[in-house]
Amino acid sequence: MNTNNRIGYQQGHSGTQTYQAINPSTQEVLPGDFVAATEQEVNQAVELAYDAWKTYRNTTGAQKAVFLRTIADEIEALDQELINRASQESGLPTGRITGERGRTCNQLRLFAKLVEAGHWVDAVIDPAMPDRKPLPRVDIRRMLQAMGPVVVFTASNFPLAFSTAGGDTASALAAGCPVIVKSHPSHPGTNALVSEAILQAAKKCGMPEGIYSSVQDIGYGVGTQLVQHPKVKAVAFTGSLRGGMALHKAAMNREEPIPVFAEMGSINPVFLMPEQLKENAAQTAAQMAGSVTLGVGQFCTNPGLTVAMADDHTHAFLSELEKAIQAAQPATMLNEGIFKNFEQGKEKLFAESGVEPAGIQEVTGTDWKGFPAVAKTTAQNFLNKPKLHEEIFGPLTLVVLCNNYEEMKAVAAVLQGQLTATIMGPEDKLAKWEALMNTLREKVGRLIFNGLPTGVEVGYAMQHGGPFPATTDSRFTSVGTDAIKRFARPIAFQNCPDQLLPAELRVDNPLGISRTVNGEIGKH
Amino acid sequence: MNTNNRIGYQQGHSGTQTYQAINPSTQEVLPGDFVAATEQEVNQAVELAYDAWKTYRNTTGAQKAVFLRTIADEIEALDQELINRASQESGLPTGRITGERGRTCNQLRLFAKLVEAGHWVDAVIDPAMPDRKPLPRVDIRRMLQAMGPVVVFTASNFPLAFSTAGGDTASALAAGCPVIVKSHPSHPGTNALVSEAILQAAKKCGMPEGIYSSVQDIGYGVGTQLVQHPKVKAVAFTGSLRGGMALHKAAMNREEPIPVFAEMGSINPVFLMPEQLKENAAQTAAQMAGSVTLGVGQFCTNPGLTVAMADDHTHAFLSELEKAIQAAQPATMLNEGIFKNFEQGKEKLFAESGVEPAGIQEVTGTDWKGFPAVAKTTAQNFLNKPKLHEEIFGPLTLVVLCNNYEEMKAVAAVLQGQLTATIMGPEDKLAKWEALMNTLREKVGRLIFNGLPTGVEVGYAMQHGGPFPATTDSRFTSVGTDAIKRFARPIAFQNCPDQLLPAELRVDNPLGISRTVNGEIGKH
Repeated sequence: MNTNNRIGYQQGHSGTQTYQAINPSTQEVLPGDFVAATEQEVNQAVELAYDAWKTYRNTTGAQKAVFLRTIADEIEALDQELINRASQESGLPTGRITGERGRTCNQLRLFAKLVEAGHWVDAVIDPAMPDRKPLPRVDIRRMLQAMGPVVVFTASNFPLAFSTAGGDTASALAAGCPVIVKSHPSHPGTNALVSEAILQAAKKCGMPEGIYSSVQDIGYGVGTQLVQHPKVKAVAFTGSLRGGMALHKAAMNREEPIPVFAEMGSINPVFLMPEQLKENAAQTAAQMAGSVTLGVGQFCTNPGLTVAMADDHTHAFLSELEKAIQAAQPATMLNEGIFKNFEQGKEKLFAESGVEPAGIQEVTGTDWKGFPAVAKTTAQNFLNKPKLHEEIFGPLTLVVLCNNYEEMKAVAAVLQGQLTATIMGPEDKLAKWEALMNTLREKVGRLIFNGLPTGVEVGYAMQHGGPFPATTDSRFTSVGTDAIKRFARPIAFQNCPDQLLPAELRVDNPLGISRTVNGEIGKH
Repeated sequence: MNTNNRIGYQQGHSGTQTYQAINPSTQEVLPGDFVAATEQEVNQAVELAYDAWKTYRNTTGAQKAVFLRTIADEIEALDQELINRASQESGLPTGRITGERGRTCNQLRLFAKLVEAGHWVDAVIDPAMPDRKPLPRVDIRRMLQAMGPVVVFTASNFPLAFSTAGGDTASALAAGCPVIVKSHPSHPGTNALVSEAILQAAKKCGMPEGIYSSVQDIGYGVGTQLVQHPKVKAVAFTGSLRGGMALHKAAMNREEPIPVFAEMGSINPVFLMPEQLKENAAQTAAQMAGSVTLGVGQFCTNPGLTVAMADDHTHAFLSELEKAIQAAQPATMLNEGIFKNFEQGKEKLFAESGVEPAGIQEVTGTDWKGFPAVAKTTAQNFLNKPKLHEEIFGPLTLVVLCNNYEEMKAVAAVLQGQLTATIMGPEDKLAKWEALMNTLREKVGRLIFNGLPTGVEVGYAMQHGGPFPATTDSRFTSVGTDAIKRFARPIAFQNCPDQLLPAELRVDNPLGISRTVNGEIGKH
């Protein structure tokens, strides 16, 4: 296990502070004294990234694709060593980690395919019109280009897929940006292994030194320094509202503000039609329980809010949901902090007037194992207490019981921004809820019908983002191919000789990509 | 002349403070006591806009197109009354204002065409794959939707094209967002006339009340209140760095931060190859003088910096440039503040050691007429003095004389973000400067060859934006069709019944728009 910072192709170990990972399942210290990065090492990582950017940004899509695929291969070559270490550091079972590795490698290969195809640069061409009246039109050609060095903060809840070689790193590298990873203190060993895989791939592919660095810290100093460095041009983060907003504030207070893509809190409301529960109370309860407890409730899209009518069908549903949640085994959470926050959040929730536990889930967890819980309250109580609208990270859903459709719409209207909202009901009845659907469209990045918010497909159409506080920038997604757009900005070339243009913009379209010419898109 | 605020379809005149426009050419007060908006009126405008958004955002592209074209027709119907008032309030000649009106109306009609065609929503579809292994893929469809009420600050330097019905308003309305205009205190009468045209068009097209409001203020209170209002979702601004950053800060310190698209300062460097001046010194000097003095140097893309080699050809060029600038008539600037800032900026520039005037342009202007000026300095002096990198808004260019290509690249490397940079040289020699071109690509939104930065084409490919401090968000443009993207965010529909989907996403593509299906774009 390499416990050093990785500063380009060098080892960074001049720091004096070290820390260890803890296995949340056993609370035992795992092997490895990880060295916190020094200010000088952080600066060096950024300077190397900036220098690497000058060549890497002009690397072809085909070359970047080989690099991304080689990273995936190198990660797979780590085999059980990676699976075991990630499982030990996260408390997540090896089956889940194996699945997450598959997702991580598929993601890298999807971005490889994307940049190989090349359409993503959004080439737009307005050819010259020398005879236009009253003034001739000059030739203008625009495309996206890489923004510069990107800092990625790895997430506690996905040690692979939202971490060192996760979606943020994959999309930044695909865009043409060098990456500096700030490793999460909960899984430094996983980060060390994956960082080694990335660096191996970079060397094999002849990538410039500085295209990738990884720096470590158990506190906030290294992260803050990175966000404030003038040569860093964008930041990606997945985590808490508090953490995301601290980074956002630091980035906005720079002399040159830079974008921070922080994916933060969401309670992902699920609205249940009475007709749904009338026909499928038990099945819906089983689905909901599965989604609430998936990954010990530690998914960004965990359904923390369930909204239903206060009728007999809902009571039947609730009784099934309680049974299913009680039957769920309490399971180890990611780290002590997350476990304690969950238990405290649960305690505070149940202490609120008008909030009742459903079943016995008010039991306090032990040994960092979160006890799943269902709470219930009335719509009026929910509407009066903004505290109830806040996320409690873990396996818990608050069921809000409404007396009528008006109350249900009122609940939707007071919600903050969300990654997702879900409506469940028979397909031929959904149209009755068009007004609710329109309100939810204001609030979310993804609107789901008869499905569950957990399980985020990595594709072309995915939107994993939403209005504040779900993210700091609702115009972008952190999952799916469009995640690449976060790290690129448009540049236009006016009257540029053909041979000096990037290949994407040349007259004969040598890459055969889709381009918008005079407002019409096609492979021309 | 209607001197009231326009709060939806109502008149707002309960304020007690009034102010008048001043004709900068004569310094005489123009008719009309314009009433500053009250806090209550501002709130009312935002609430109306929010309500209007709920219906307007679902308006079809065809309906929005009719509305935008009707606005253009209504503006043209104002005829000489508008031309005269805008000329009186800005000091710009009627010929220029007539041209700007044409640009404004063409812009509205271009956005009409864009939303009528409908491709702009970037529809992306990943159809369900029920048989995919190991897990089936669920149907996901994504498109852009309107963000909500938008506040537009009108610009001093383009009383029509970047003002009340300018590019910001046109693109926000095209996206499906209601607009609240904060009118610039220099041209309230122009704003009143154009606001009336927009409101007439809105009524004729049956648009909901609140789709457009206009509020007035001679100070900063109304603008600040607007940016801080929780129901405002985006802000567009063209003006000074100080003004733009004040708005940006206010927007970032909200409980829910919102995007501010501020287009601010730029010195738009022009790099002249020795071969260019060897062959075309006189012609290049005439072109540069024309660009520097165009609109009394009050264009965002005014070339405030000229970089050339310290050789005989450059001296010949400089002598021609001096002559041309001396021959240019001093002309009235937009208002007293801009005139005074220009004169002070010029004075400070010439007071810097190592900066010399070229010719007699150090003369101080009078009667709000800016005297054009050319200054010169060495590359070493420029590199040592960051103050020389700042914009002086007005008809002035600082010529930086370099001893060699290395110095020229160093000058490019220290520049801040810019809207544009320009390289002039014989086409067969440009490749020699590829390294310089690569450095400039880091800095600018638009890279121009053998043209001039002034004159910004309104098309599909235009990028009018650039890294900070040129704008607060280099990922977007404020001119051209892509300006619409500033006011929209993606939303994904997962497993949504076809009849509940927006038309843009339905299976049979009833609008016939271009869509990305399984990663391939086409009209499918």
